[in-house]
Amino acid sequence: MTYCVGLRLNKGLVFMSDTRTNAGVDNFSVTKKMFTWDVPGERVITVMTAGNLATTQALVSLLDERSKILAERSPTIMELPTMFQVARLVGATLKEVIIDSNPEGQEAATKFRASVILGGQIKGGSPTLFMIYPEGNFIEITDDSPFFQIGEAKYGKPILVRAFDPDMSFEDTIKLLLVSFDSTIKANLSVGMPLDLQIYAKDSFEVRNMNRIEADDPYFESISSGWGEALRTALTQLPSYKLD
Amino acid sequence: MTYCVGLRLNKGLVFMSDTRTNAGVDNFSVTKKMFTWDVPGERVITVMTAGNLATTQALVSLLDERSKILAERSPTIMELPTMFQVARLVGATLKEVIIDSNPEGQEAATKFRASVILGGQIKGGSPTLFMIYPEGNFIEITDDSPFFQIGEAKYGKPILVRAFDPDMSFEDTIKLLLVSFDSTIKANLSVGMPLDLQIYAKDSFEVRNMNRIEADDPYFESISSGWGEALRTALTQLPSYKLD
Repeated sequence: MTYCVGLRLNKGLVFMSDTRTNAGVDNFSVTKKMFTWDVPGERVITVMTAGNLATTQALVSLLDERSKILAERSPTIMELPTMFQVARLVGATLKEVIIDSNPEGQEAATKFRASVILGGQIKGGSPTLFMIYPEGNFIEITDDSPFFQIGEAKYGKPILVRAFDPDMSFEDTIKLLLVSFDSTIKANLSVGMPLDLQIYAKDSFEVRNMNRIEADDPYFESISSGWGEALRTALTQLPSYKLD
Repeated sequence: MTYCVGLRLNKGLVFMSDTRTNAGVDNFSVTKKMFTWDVPGERVITVMTAGNLATTQALVSLLDERSKILAERSPTIMELPTMFQVARLVGATLKEVIIDSNPEGQEAATKFRASVILGGQIKGGSPTLFMIYPEGNFIEITDDSPFFQIGEAKYGKPILVRAFDPDMSFEDTIKLLLVSFDSTIKANLSVGMPLDLQIYAKDSFEVRNMNRIEADDPYFESISSGWGEALRTALTQLPSYKLD
């Protein structure tokens, strides 16, 4: 499986993804699921993928190839004027890949499905996020639910729902995300370290702070080991149940 | 859906279940999912169910009926000498109900499947818990993983993994369970209040502390509203991420 989260803060966008892919539990590897394209000073576009690896790799390769070979199909994600139009193009490309994988030949056990979180900013617009479905359609982030998750979303959701606030700093958001990812990694073998992290500061139009957080990262270890203790302390702060 | 948890403490057993059943989101109701049989001074047996309601009601009715009509099929859950044998009987009865629901007639959209958490104590044995699968087979609780969940288990699992300890008091365990249930209820509409709670004190061989916790229960409200704040405080106790 996979776990990816994209959040919209007032200060910008934060993306985090795990890197584990697997076919069963006896065949797993590390694969990047976060991809960024930019025109410095004009646009930054980030894509995170979950689902069938052949599908997501084909999607990213097509987006990338078409952004370089201008003649083939234009405009590309490097030229479209708004994030909404980029989302339409990514959705259409995703749908195209999935349909191509389902020919008349032998039926596969899987449906080659995949989902995408798309985020970024193009000059003239605000930073935004989209969740794109295998059918090619998509939803945009709103103030009421200011984050998207794809993949194994359930274990790490309650802490995001309770503690995330768009006014948070980038640093606090990363801390919160690491707690969410740590809970998920502890609960589902198909989500694993290292983690990819990217921060996009509003109106910066440049890629900064792309980090890979390894399993032995001292900060991650301090969060992972400290969170259990912090939770138990938090529980003691709540009033006690009175048995009759 | 459903959410039920059974935990084994050194002091005894704790059971909690939600009460929402639904067919789609436009048809839901309150239904008890926790059932207890006892022979005071000799045995207490509790069953919690998740899955198809027709299946789980039939299971409970059969267990109940057969425990009263001695002639029909003997021994019943009221007479079997060990919890292991009770688990075998409950598993066999569950399998029988599911097979009966799948005749040669029209194929249904669902598979009439259900899962069960069985717990209790019979004189001569220790308090224990079993998780029983739709196929009728089952696993028993171990010291390494001292709780079982059925239904919508993911949202509420991380807090249990992090904070549960078999040395806990009943009061602290209930507080922990309410946090786990509150996180689940906030995330999945098919899990809902009120909650049924039962505590079994080791070697007591009697049913005590069966409570229904309503949505407007002041203690539950204090946990539900206080936990968000407690979590945010817990996060601030962790070290901050340093951006380059």
